[in-house]
Amino acid sequence: MEETTTIFGIRTVIEAIESGKSIDKIYIQKGLSGPLFSELKEVLQKTSFNISYVPSEKLYKLSKGNHQGVVAKIAPINFANLEETIEKTINTIENPLFLLLDQVNDVRNFGAIIRTAECCGVNAIIIPEKGGAPINADTVKTSAGAVFNIPICKVNHIRDAIFYLQSSGVEVTAATEKTEQTIYDIQFNKPCAIVMGNEGKGVSPSILKTVNQKAKLPMQGTIASLNVSVACGAFLYEVVRQRL
Amino acid sequence: MEETTTIFGIRTVIEAIESGKSIDKIYIQKGLSGPLFSELKEVLQKTSFNISYVPSEKLYKLSKGNHQGVVAKIAPINFANLEETIEKTINTIENPLFLLLDQVNDVRNFGAIIRTAECCGVNAIIIPEKGGAPINADTVKTSAGAVFNIPICKVNHIRDAIFYLQSSGVEVTAATEKTEQTIYDIQFNKPCAIVMGNEGKGVSPSILKTVNQKAKLPMQGTIASLNVSVACGAFLYEVVRQRL
Repeated sequence: MEETTTIFGIRTVIEAIESGKSIDKIYIQKGLSGPLFSELKEVLQKTSFNISYVPSEKLYKLSKGNHQGVVAKIAPINFANLEETIEKTINTIENPLFLLLDQVNDVRNFGAIIRTAECCGVNAIIIPEKGGAPINADTVKTSAGAVFNIPICKVNHIRDAIFYLQSSGVEVTAATEKTEQTIYDIQFNKPCAIVMGNEGKGVSPSILKTVNQKAKLPMQGTIASLNVSVACGAFLYEVVRQRL
Repeated sequence: MEETTTIFGIRTVIEAIESGKSIDKIYIQKGLSGPLFSELKEVLQKTSFNISYVPSEKLYKLSKGNHQGVVAKIAPINFANLEETIEKTINTIENPLFLLLDQVNDVRNFGAIIRTAECCGVNAIIIPEKGGAPINADTVKTSAGAVFNIPICKVNHIRDAIFYLQSSGVEVTAATEKTEQTIYDIQFNKPCAIVMGNEGKGVSPSILKTVNQKAKLPMQGTIASLNVSVACGAFLYEVVRQRL
């Protein structure tokens, strides 16, 4: 199983970006300057990678090599292109199913969700460039390898992906407690997408405004809150049930 | 939030047992002997606690105190009595729902399952004395505190609990891939119990022989295996859906 790769050195990172590698995160030393770094900055301006400006101690922890103030983590998969993936799916599958993750933070939840999505026939998973769990060795492991079997698209903003899906005829449902409607009130026998939110905050208000509908799982106890991977499983299996 | 308590010393452990504390596990130094230890052995013969015989280094890691070769972990909850819990539930609730866990090993899965069970209105969770994840601080945390809201019964053998449930008119369904029947083929509008199995091995063959029926979740991908807490959520929510 391929694990997350750490690359270092300004030139190496520039080349990784230009060759289209699936860069998960770039760490840049605070206060870095110089002509080579200016070149990197120029390249980065055309991208929307997840960048952290960190003290040099952090960089030495990430890489023992001569990193020149820049270290990047490369994901073990190649991300799929959103537009191409949606087009291709819609043209080949009658009732496609997409899953959007709005900042699911925990690697184990993320892995379990990818695994469940694969078992439920999800055609593609859409995640944001920033703010979500990385795809690293732990994600690969908790996904039981499902990361390699399902297209994952990384986008600047989940909202833009929702607009693109809607304009392609896909109905988008957000999983949220902020509604009276349960998943059993919704018709999933059509092209559809489900949005799952962050562990603590749920789906962002700005995203809730853009979706076609909101749905919750009925709650019977006093805790009234499920683990996000469990909730995602219950949502996806309701889609599966309706489509059987 | 109460965390797992570690107690040590032979006399202390004997008293904890005799006062009916929820002992999660007892660690005994390999080769231990002496009159006080003989007394402990005698007390232990009447119980079925989870006991590990360990080298002294392990005990010193568990407790810095004068442990005399014996350390025990006490669970942060009091376990409920199986027979009493079943009787009481059956007499007060029309369609009770029980959840049996056949050696779910991972603490995070266990916690997420307790949390889901509480959200789905499960009336009691039944776990085996040996071979399952402990109820410790991590379980409490991943259950979002649900451990304190739902009765948990610890039994010598899950099989005996199944017989007891069946003789009380409860239909027992095992979650297993070893069947052609899906959960959507099953009627959950009656007193019922669900058995979820171990992360790697699933529900034990000896337990599969005793249940009323077996059911699986339909699988669409190539991984064909879900995280146990996700699978448990999909099972329980199908019960919830049918009962709405």
